[in-house]
Amino acid sequence: MEYDGTDFFGYQKQPGKRTVQGELEKAFARICGERVKIAAAGRTDAGVHAVGQVISFRTSGSIPLERIAKAANSVLPPDVAVKSAEEVPEDFHARYSAKSRVYRYTIVESPTRLPLIGRYAHVVGTRVDEKLMAEAAKLFIGEHDFRGFAIVEDDKSSVRQVKRFDVVRRGRIVEVTIEANAFLRSMARFLVSALLKLSEQSMSVEDLMRILNTGERCETLRPAPPQGLCLVKVNY
Amino acid sequence: MEYDGTDFFGYQKQPGKRTVQGELEKAFARICGERVKIAAAGRTDAGVHAVGQVISFRTSGSIPLERIAKAANSVLPPDVAVKSAEEVPEDFHARYSAKSRVYRYTIVESPTRLPLIGRYAHVVGTRVDEKLMAEAAKLFIGEHDFRGFAIVEDDKSSVRQVKRFDVVRRGRIVEVTIEANAFLRSMARFLVSALLKLSEQSMSVEDLMRILNTGERCETLRPAPPQGLCLVKVNY
Repeated sequence: MEYDGTDFFGYQKQPGKRTVQGELEKAFARICGERVKIAAAGRTDAGVHAVGQVISFRTSGSIPLERIAKAANSVLPPDVAVKSAEEVPEDFHARYSAKSRVYRYTIVESPTRLPLIGRYAHVVGTRVDEKLMAEAAKLFIGEHDFRGFAIVEDDKSSVRQVKRFDVVRRGRIVEVTIEANAFLRSMARFLVSALLKLSEQSMSVEDLMRILNTGERCETLRPAPPQGLCLVKVNY
Repeated sequence: MEYDGTDFFGYQKQPGKRTVQGELEKAFARICGERVKIAAAGRTDAGVHAVGQVISFRTSGSIPLERIAKAANSVLPPDVAVKSAEEVPEDFHARYSAKSRVYRYTIVESPTRLPLIGRYAHVVGTRVDEKLMAEAAKLFIGEHDFRGFAIVEDDKSSVRQVKRFDVVRRGRIVEVTIEANAFLRSMARFLVSALLKLSEQSMSVEDLMRILNTGERCETLRPAPPQGLCLVKVNY
């Protein structure tokens, strides 16, 4: 699936709010002729986009597989679409079967707002030190407790495995790619924010490692703006 | 200047419609403390975007040059922004002084709608023959009467000089770049549409050359959708 997160209160259903899950469940109820419960690989935050979200559901409806994407897209709002559909084994679950998720965060250097590019990127006024960021990103690779870089629920494990964490410049665009087995809430945005603080020298590598090791976040660290983030791929 | 054309009825001011020029004149009247008349290099159609639009105006207002972009961006709506400002000679005119305009048209191959990418691209369901398009594009380079590929006013010259017309594939994205001394109304979109008709074999190279030579457009040729087009650069 692909969606433009701008006008959604995130992926996950919430009463009285426009959410991606809410729109999907409405659409699939119509085309399947019954209520469906939808599981998603990534429960993206409000304002975060997706070009490679994966969802799964079970239906006894009679719509042929090859008509599902087209039927769904004819009833879904313009900012969400199904790109393809396939049948999966009974025990497949979009969220629990996923081996890893890949998120991309896009930073653009510009002294001013950029209405076109800024819809899908975080526009920063200062030059970004992508080499420093790339060096520090390597330190996060592997299995760590990421509670210092996320919004966590106390009774759940906050250990995650980061498999890839790249920072690459293309002209005045800096692209951050993070792959992990799974992400805690706002984790990708906290990690990008930490690297940006490093770049602007308001935090040191030691500060970041202390947060990683103690799980205690300093108050000045806030998640990077959501519009820069996009769920690009889910691996099974 | 940069703007997201989605929610505008084009660049040029029209009574009762939301236009880029209308928003700019309101904003600059506020920051200059007087009414200003704004000239633009490209009067883009409704729905067409810009990342490199150039405008000029004359003011006796007292705002320092280095504050203009910031001041304008603080009063302009989120979908338009000024990227930089400079002082120019008395006889400079954003439109009449321009030597050429560069437009880029983005086509994306996908069997389904793409909400994120589709905001700034034309999504097509079939494979595009970019090599055939690139070959035909060359035939338009040079000075020609483009009335068959534009909306023209009868009493004005419709001769324009195309300097560059490239078609390049990057994965499933096909980018068309057209540079001309100036463009007739909807000309870039008509030219892209013609190449797409060639690609889908509903028109031949001979058909396109006949339209170019006679100035008579067949009814089936309509401008390609506006959201794929972006004014990227103006050369002076």
